[in-house]
Amino acid sequence: MSKLYFRFGAMNCGKTTALLQVAHNYEEKGMKVIIIKPSIDKKGGKKIVSRLGIERSVDILIGPKEKLTSKIDFNNLSCILVDEVQFMSKSQIKELWIISKLKDIPVICYGLKTNFKGKLFEGTKALMEVADELEELITICKCGKRAKFNARLVDGKYVKDGEEVIIDGMSANQIYEPLCGKCYIEKVLKIKY
Amino acid sequence: MSKLYFRFGAMNCGKTTALLQVAHNYEEKGMKVIIIKPSIDKKGGKKIVSRLGIERSVDILIGPKEKLTSKIDFNNLSCILVDEVQFMSKSQIKELWIISKLKDIPVICYGLKTNFKGKLFEGTKALMEVADELEELITICKCGKRAKFNARLVDGKYVKDGEEVIIDGMSANQIYEPLCGKCYIEKVLKIKY
Amino acid sequence: MSKLYFRFGAMNCGKTTALLQVAHNYEEKGMKVIIIKPSIDKKGGKKIVSRLGIERSVDILIGPKEKLTSKIDFNNLSCILVDEVQFMSKSQIKELWIISKLKDIPVICYGLKTNFKGKLFEGTKALMEVADELEELITICKCGKRAKFNARLVDGKYVKDGEEVIIDGMSANQIYEPLCGKCYIEKVLKIKY
Amino acid sequence: MSKLYFRFGAMNCGKTTALLQVAHNYEEKGMKVIIIKPSIDKKGGKKIVSRLGIERSVDILIGPKEKLTSKIDFNNLSCILVDEVQFMSKSQIKELWIISKLKDIPVICYGLKTNFKGKLFEGTKALMEVADELEELITICKCGKRAKFNARLVDGKYVKDGEEVIIDGMSANQIYEPLCGKCYIEKVLKIKY
Repeated sequence: MSKLYFRFGAMNCGKTTALLQVAHNYEEKGMKVIIIKPSIDKKGGKKIVSRLGIERSVDILIGPKEKLTSKIDFNNLSCILVDEVQFMSKSQIKELWIISKLKDIPVICYGLKTNFKGKLFEGTKALMEVADELEELITICKCGKRAKFNARLVDGKYVKDGEEVIIDGMSANQIYEPLCGKCYIEKVLKIKY
Repeated sequence: MSKLYFRFGAMNCGKTTALLQVAHNYEEKGMKVIIIKPSIDKKGGKKIVSRLGIERSVDILIGPKEKLTSKIDFNNLSCILVDEVQFMSKSQIKELWIISKLKDIPVICYGLKTNFKGKLFEGTKALMEVADELEELITICKCGKRAKFNARLVDGKYVKDGEEVIIDGMSANQIYEPLCGKCYIEKVLKIKY
Repeated sequence: MSKLYFRFGAMNCGKTTALLQVAHNYEEKGMKVIIIKPSIDKKGGKKIVSRLGIERSVDILIGPKEKLTSKIDFNNLSCILVDEVQFMSKSQIKELWIISKLKDIPVICYGLKTNFKGKLFEGTKALMEVADELEELITICKCGKRAKFNARLVDGKYVKDGEEVIIDGMSANQIYEPLCGKCYIEKVLKIKY
Repeated sequence: MSKLYFRFGAMNCGKTTALLQVAHNYEEKGMKVIIIKPSIDKKGGKKIVSRLGIERSVDILIGPKEKLTSKIDFNNLSCILVDEVQFMSKSQIKELWIISKLKDIPVICYGLKTNFKGKLFEGTKALMEVADELEELITICKCGKRAKFNARLVDGKYVKDGEEVIIDGMSANQIYEPLCGKCYIEKVLKIKY
């Protein structure tokens, strides 16, 4: 029985690099993988691009209402890789889970755990319910601790409210900042004891 | 900066035994711990009881609308332990998180990940958002694989619908069954490929 | 393909409690487990006893030169549990590994990682080479951090030299103390920067 | 207190890519890291090169008898990264451990767990004794399972004996193959039940 993996982390932690490495590991052995990305993520278009400078085209760009099973060619497929999984719908996550169990194909999903308000994305919540393995990828808060949260900055100031998704490949790095729990509480939520 | 831990697992995986062991480890060194349980969990009353036969009284039985900070004596406190954390409210989880960061006291929570419908509990969802460590405790499906889901049986038949919580110390073991993903899909959701 | 698990931790972290919980989880489902202990561990004789007060008889007490395969009845066996695995020989660990892979039976081993000098035990070294999963059980240093090392005290003083094994059920708690890395460096190795 | 991490995996699992990602994560925030490699590893010379095509120069190429503390500039240092850590000496690992605890600088080591005979390297054994976190990076056996072992092939045949180290950048991929436990037992050790 294959597993459904969720590898999550704050922005800029290296999720796409990790995904591309796994694809490489399979393909080096002549095994077939498929890379899927939700079309709602406009960044990079039909490509996924790692901040280390590696890029690669996506095999399936999936719309929010589309069914995965009708798009995936399961023939000789060794692994399904999903980038930006937080943007998948609840029913797409359910499909991925059932594929891992009934088709016996490992599914490895990369994505954010929480939005800038600290809340689970729809896709993430669904994954938390069914994933076999929850694995955290680590990045660094500016205080040196592990960053777990994604703060949004507007005009240089941390904000707590706004739309969940502003995806803009060019400015993404400038307006989001990974923070540890303590910094998020103090700087964004402004809670003191 | 202390951590907020979420140690989850299916029913009957040994969460309470694990909690009691941690309490013992601290107290053996003369360190003070507090054990908290939501009052909504009627099982055992003011006690927590492990299926291995160990039991212990709870320090704080917390109501769904109560604030934790007003009930906890932080003086010389080394660790906060929470049992049945899935029944905590969203705002109680937020309190636990802030305590771990601003009071610098480790908080270790034990609870279920999902209800019998396979959905996150309110407390669990909130914990998934803020916990520093997500650690799974393992139990066994009757097929021999790792159990991740809690199926509910009524009159010996798996059910998909009903109230989220039926807590009744005496019959709990009889009506819930831990299942692996594949068995849950096949026996409860009755999905085939 | 079943896994070989190594669950290690410092003294008094709750290894035996965890083992007894796993045995209970299997047996509650009518599945058969076997508990093995090296005979070199005199503590408790043919019993294993948890510090929480739970005890149970061992199924196989294995001598340092004995072969495991000749002693284990594999018929209908669902899981092999090993306590005090650090005292197993290199070749016994190899047997356990091969059993997990070729008989397809999960083997879960509990034991210490290092002796009081901070060195791997023979059985531990062999397990580190072949185990599929390395999982740490946690206990607390008196400074409040995670304890990883086992310091030996003789007449109340930390010692760096001596025989690897002094096992004596009655005094074990008095003469060993779990310490975190920093305390071990400062108090036992007496290194300063 | 900072941690000493050991992130290990079979050959070609992506260790160098992962190291380069961490370096990038720190430097993107203006934090200083140092990358160390044992000089015994001739592959790439003063560079480390990931199989995904990313490369970078090493800061310190350390000889087997050299002391690390005399070579590292600790001024404003946020993280120490070590590649091919299995080739470090026992005393260099001890230095790294003490640095993490007494200088309070995180040290993240990447390397192989075992040689082609399935035995721990000297540096790996020492790390297993003192590392705070043991984290496995995963690659794939040709059977589709997780690869844990490094088999050596000479003229296309698996071998069990020979020198521990043959490092030759050009042919390394051709002569080593990552295998899962079962394939290693059956194909290299040729053990049957």
